[in-house]
Amino acid sequence: MDALNTVESLLAGFPVVVTVPVQWGDQDAFGHVNNTVYFRWMESARIAYGQRIGLHDLLADRQIGPILASTACDFRRPVNFPDTIHVGIRINRIGRTSLAHDMRIVSQEQQAVVAEGTSTTVVFDYAANRPHPVPAPIRQAIEALEGRSF
Amino acid sequence: MDALNTVESLLAGFPVVVTVPVQWGDQDAFGHVNNTVYFRWMESARIAYGQRIGLHDLLADRQIGPILASTACDFRRPVNFPDTIHVGIRINRIGRTSLAHDMRIVSQEQQAVVAEGTSTTVVFDYAANRPHPVPAPIRQAIEALEGRSF
Amino acid sequence: MDALNTVESLLAGFPVVVTVPVQWGDQDAFGHVNNTVYFRWMESARIAYGQRIGLHDLLADRQIGPILASTACDFRRPVNFPDTIHVGIRINRIGRTSLAHDMRIVSQEQQAVVAEGTSTTVVFDYAANRPHPVPAPIRQAIEALEGRSF
Amino acid sequence: MDALNTVESLLAGFPVVVTVPVQWGDQDAFGHVNNTVYFRWMESARIAYGQRIGLHDLLADRQIGPILASTACDFRRPVNFPDTIHVGIRINRIGRTSLAHDMRIVSQEQQAVVAEGTSTTVVFDYAANRPHPVPAPIRQAIEALEGRSF
Repeated sequence: MDALNTVESLLAGFPVVVTVPVQWGDQDAFGHVNNTVYFRWMESARIAYGQRIGLHDLLADRQIGPILASTACDFRRPVNFPDTIHVGIRINRIGRTSLAHDMRIVSQEQQAVVAEGTSTTVVFDYAANRPHPVPAPIRQAIEALEGRSF
Repeated sequence: MDALNTVESLLAGFPVVVTVPVQWGDQDAFGHVNNTVYFRWMESARIAYGQRIGLHDLLADRQIGPILASTACDFRRPVNFPDTIHVGIRINRIGRTSLAHDMRIVSQEQQAVVAEGTSTTVVFDYAANRPHPVPAPIRQAIEALEGRSF
Repeated sequence: MDALNTVESLLAGFPVVVTVPVQWGDQDAFGHVNNTVYFRWMESARIAYGQRIGLHDLLADRQIGPILASTACDFRRPVNFPDTIHVGIRINRIGRTSLAHDMRIVSQEQQAVVAEGTSTTVVFDYAANRPHPVPAPIRQAIEALEGRSF
Repeated sequence: MDALNTVESLLAGFPVVVTVPVQWGDQDAFGHVNNTVYFRWMESARIAYGQRIGLHDLLADRQIGPILASTACDFRRPVNFPDTIHVGIRINRIGRTSLAHDMRIVSQEQQAVVAEGTSTTVVFDYAANRPHPVPAPIRQAIEALEGRSF
């Protein structure tokens, strides 16, 4: 099994994957990629997922948008330059006004999971200044993408 | 009660506090401080705490050092430029080879807690390539700083 | 002469100064503050200058705003954590549609100039999609702040 | 001519090219990629060039390494997410102890040059604490890569 096949198998079950090269400057004084960079990668994965389900298109005209309520990361292995990172993302729960994501970060060089993360995004109505129910078309797009109902 | 007094009272019980100005460029395309910046602030708080307990001095000569195992953040309110941020940090648990931190992020402009975070740091022996027990002088310095035993 | 007095004398002639603590995570794998961080500091200085002359207030309602056309930095000395950085900024030329800035970066720890930078900002009319003449009140505010005419 | 061919023609004469996706979080509150990110991209290009000429391998064992002495960037067009960026780099001058680079940043979405940059790197002998002559094998590797003598 070649390198990309291993990456793919490590990310099985994640319907959206983003790929980002490690930049030399992502490393900090310990000589590893800094923890903040993992959160940048996970943010990129959330944005890609949101684009796939039409979250940004649907919500652009209305005063509604996603807000990051919480996020967490377990660091399994240090990452170094040079490398290429693949971030898989899936939704594991749709709340009334929120979406919960799982993210898995895989190193192509190490052929291994280097971190696992979670986050909760709230759909927010800026005009009303309160959370807004997840729109039905968004829910349907998520279920189609995930291949299951929530 | 003036602004700094409120900040101080919101950070009561956190023995180490770091203060950082919000920079304009910390804001992302949503016009708020980006989530990765909160993790940079919390990292700065952990480093300050490590300096206070002699973690870096004690461990500098030996092949031993802290590794971030996990971190998480709950975002309570958006932060905007201009503002000044105060991050309080305390240790809530000393494991055999790990330290667990609580962090609270307070906005001076908003006079409010804008985020709460946690992290776990492992003391790692790079030569032996495995976790290393928390050294006794570090444990003592933490207990002196926190004013309690663990 | 104490430390702050030396910093002040190194920044004589710069009417606006911003102060930023070095964060540990500003350092890269060479163990020095990364070059991109100097540009973040200089951006913070430009924003502070713009606030002082009312650039942002004046232009907020109209489709007019500053665009960074170019910037440069000469690095004189490496900067390390911990340190506090003071960035002085002055305008050295007002063009028809542009402002040219000089910036000087001083390390409090080193009591020395660690970098010198320049930048050119263009006042841009987004509605008309072309550069816009520097408004007269902005020019007057700059001249008042710099204590000379251009 | 398709998109990649246009990018390639815009980067003709640059022997090393690095490709980086724009991440959503690279954008600042103006909704464009922040200026500091262009310097991160140019740094990645310099590192890639250094790897190609064996700069890092050759110098790793000795207390010699590259130091960024100065860098500059002219911003031609704003960059937005999503996009893919190609950075071409060439050396335009070899000094006794320094290397001068030209860098060109091309947007795949815009099919256009979005920025041009320069930088000067000094070869530094950390043990002797002074600049060190560019080693002959490095000079030869550069001439082979650039296809001309300096």
